[in-house]
Amino acid sequence: LLGDALAGDRAALARVLSLVERGGEPARQVGAQVGLHRDADGPRRGYTVGITGAPGAGKSTLTNALIGEIRGHGQRVAVLALDPSSPFTGGALLGDRVRMGDHALDDDVFIRSMATRGHLGGLAVAAPEAVRVLSAAGFDWILVETVGVGQVEVEVAGQTDTTMVVVNPGWGDAVQAAKAGLMEIADLFVVNKADRPGAAEAQRDLERMLDLSGTTGEGGWRPPVLLAVATTGDHVDAVWTAVGAHRAHQEESGGLVERRRRRAAEEITRLLAARLLNDARRLTSGPEAAKLAEAVADGKLDPWTAVDDLLG
Amino acid sequence: LLGDALAGDRAALARVLSLVERGGEPARQVGAQVGLHRDADGPRRGYTVGITGAPGAGKSTLTNALIGEIRGHGQRVAVLALDPSSPFTGGALLGDRVRMGDHALDDDVFIRSMATRGHLGGLAVAAPEAVRVLSAAGFDWILVETVGVGQVEVEVAGQTDTTMVVVNPGWGDAVQAAKAGLMEIADLFVVNKADRPGAAEAQRDLERMLDLSGTTGEGGWRPPVLLAVATTGDHVDAVWTAVGAHRAHQEESGGLVERRRRRAAEEITRLLAARLLNDARRLTSGPEAAKLAEAVADGKLDPWTAVDDLLG
Repeated sequence: LLGDALAGDRAALARVLSLVERGGEPARQVGAQVGLHRDADGPRRGYTVGITGAPGAGKSTLTNALIGEIRGHGQRVAVLALDPSSPFTGGALLGDRVRMGDHALDDDVFIRSMATRGHLGGLAVAAPEAVRVLSAAGFDWILVETVGVGQVEVEVAGQTDTTMVVVNPGWGDAVQAAKAGLMEIADLFVVNKADRPGAAEAQRDLERMLDLSGTTGEGGWRPPVLLAVATTGDHVDAVWTAVGAHRAHQEESGGLVERRRRRAAEEITRLLAARLLNDARRLTSGPEAAKLAEAVADGKLDPWTAVDDLLG
Repeated sequence: LLGDALAGDRAALARVLSLVERGGEPARQVGAQVGLHRDADGPRRGYTVGITGAPGAGKSTLTNALIGEIRGHGQRVAVLALDPSSPFTGGALLGDRVRMGDHALDDDVFIRSMATRGHLGGLAVAAPEAVRVLSAAGFDWILVETVGVGQVEVEVAGQTDTTMVVVNPGWGDAVQAAKAGLMEIADLFVVNKADRPGAAEAQRDLERMLDLSGTTGEGGWRPPVLLAVATTGDHVDAVWTAVGAHRAHQEESGGLVERRRRRAAEEITRLLAARLLNDARRLTSGPEAAKLAEAVADGKLDPWTAVDDLLG
C-alpha cells in the first residue's frame, strides 16, 4: 500500500494518511517504512510552509492562491489542513471537496484534512509523520494550514520550514495582545484582504511590533510584512517570492538544517511522551486507579498524591 | 498565601492561580494543600459549567449575562476563560479588564483568563486545578469558557458538570460537520443571536441532529436547544433554568458523582502523563538524543526507532 502511495496512487496515499491519522501500531509501521523509500541521492525532502492565523483571516483562500503560484512554477504541492476541532469549522467535511474544485484534475496537487480528535498528542505526532509521507510521495512543497486556532494547532504550524501568519486589516488592538505568540513563530506576515480599510495601519502596527521586540529572527532574518488580496490573487506572487527568500536565507545560513534538527528532537520527545502516555493509561485502568479517582472526585485526595501512589 | 486566597483575598487568589498556570513544583504544592482546606461538612464544591462554541458565537457576552443571572440568585461566581492561543484573540490581555467592567466592584464575581502556552498538557492539567482552587475559595458556580477553539480547549470545556455549546443562526452546513464532536460534549445547546434570521432553522437542525444520533445523553438526558440573545439578555434566564434542570437531573440520577469520578480518573491520567513527559524531556536532552535527532532530521532514521533506542 505504501509503495503504491509513494508511486503516485492517490487513493493509496489517502489510505496511508488515514492510518497515520489514526495512530497506534499501523502508524508506527508507516513511520518505520516510509524512511526506507528514497531516491538514489537520499531521502525525498519536501519544503514545508506553515499557514496560520485567526479564523476568518482567509487562510484557505490564500493557500489556494499559493497552489496556483506553485503550479505556475511547475512544481508539485500537497496541502495538509489541520482541523482537529472540526465540530466548529466543518473543514474536514466541507473543505476537501470544495477546495479541490480548482485543482481536482491536477495530479500534482493533493489536499488533505486531518482531524485527530481525542488522543492526546495526536495531531502533534501525526502531522509530522503525514508530512514525511507526502515528502516521500514526491511533493516539492507541503503547505500546513491550520483551520482552528488552538494550542496544539499553532504549535504544529510553527513546526515548519517557513511559517506564515495571516492577519486582516482592522486587527488593531489584537496586535498588542498577539505580540509574544506571533514573534515566536512568524517568519513572515501576510495582511490579507488588504483592499479593505486599515491595511496600511495593520502593516505599520506589525512593523512596530517587530521593532519593539528587537526580533530579527533566526540568523538575522527580519520577518517581512506583506499586503495581499487572496480572493483576487493580488500580490500573492510577492508572498510566494518572500517564502522563497526565506528559504534561500535559511539554506545559505545553515539555519534550515539547524531548524530541522530541533524539530526532529521535539518530535522524538512527543513520540516518547505519547508512548509513555499509553503506559500511563495502562497504569490508570486498574481497580486501584479507580479507587484513587473516586477519592480525588470526592475531594479526599489530591491528584498529585494519587499519581505518586500509582507510580509507587 | 493560599490561606489568604481561600479566605477571600482577591490579589492572593490571582497569585495562586498564576502559580497553577505556570505548573511545576509550586502548582503541585497548591494542588496538595488546597485539598486540606475544607468546611466542617467536607470539601467546598463549586458546580462547573463549560461554555464553548465557534469564535464569534458570543460566548463572552453570554457568560456575562449568566453572571447577572447567578448574582440575581445571590450566589457567587467565578469565570475561568481558557485562552491558550491568545496570539490571536487578545483575550488574556484585553479580556479581563474589559469584561470586569460590569462586575468590577462585586466581590462575589471573579474573572480570570488562563493561557498556558508551550507546555504540553498544560491547560488540561492546570484548568482542573484552577477549578479546585476556585471551589475552595467558595464560589458556588465556576464558568469555564473557551476563547479559542482547539483540541485541548474543547476537551477541557467538556470536562465540566454541565457543558453548553453556543452556536449562531445561519450555521447551516456546519451542523452536519459538527455532529460527532458536539454530540459528545453538549449537555445543552444555545442558539445565540437568535434575533437574526435563521435561528429557528438552526434550532431545528440541531434537534434533527439529536434525533438522528439517537443520543439521549447520560441517564436519559436529551440536550435541550435554547434560543437566546445574550446582548439584550433575552431568554438568558431560560438558559440558566436549563442549566439548573440538567444539574438537578444529574444529582437525582447519580450521574454527577459518576461524571466527576470519570473526570478525576482522566485528570490523574493526564497528570501522570505530564510527569512522564518530564522524564521524557530528561531522556531526550542528552548528547545521544541529539545524535538521534540529527539522524531523524537527515532522513536516516525514523522517529519511532529513535524512541526505541532511547528507551532501550
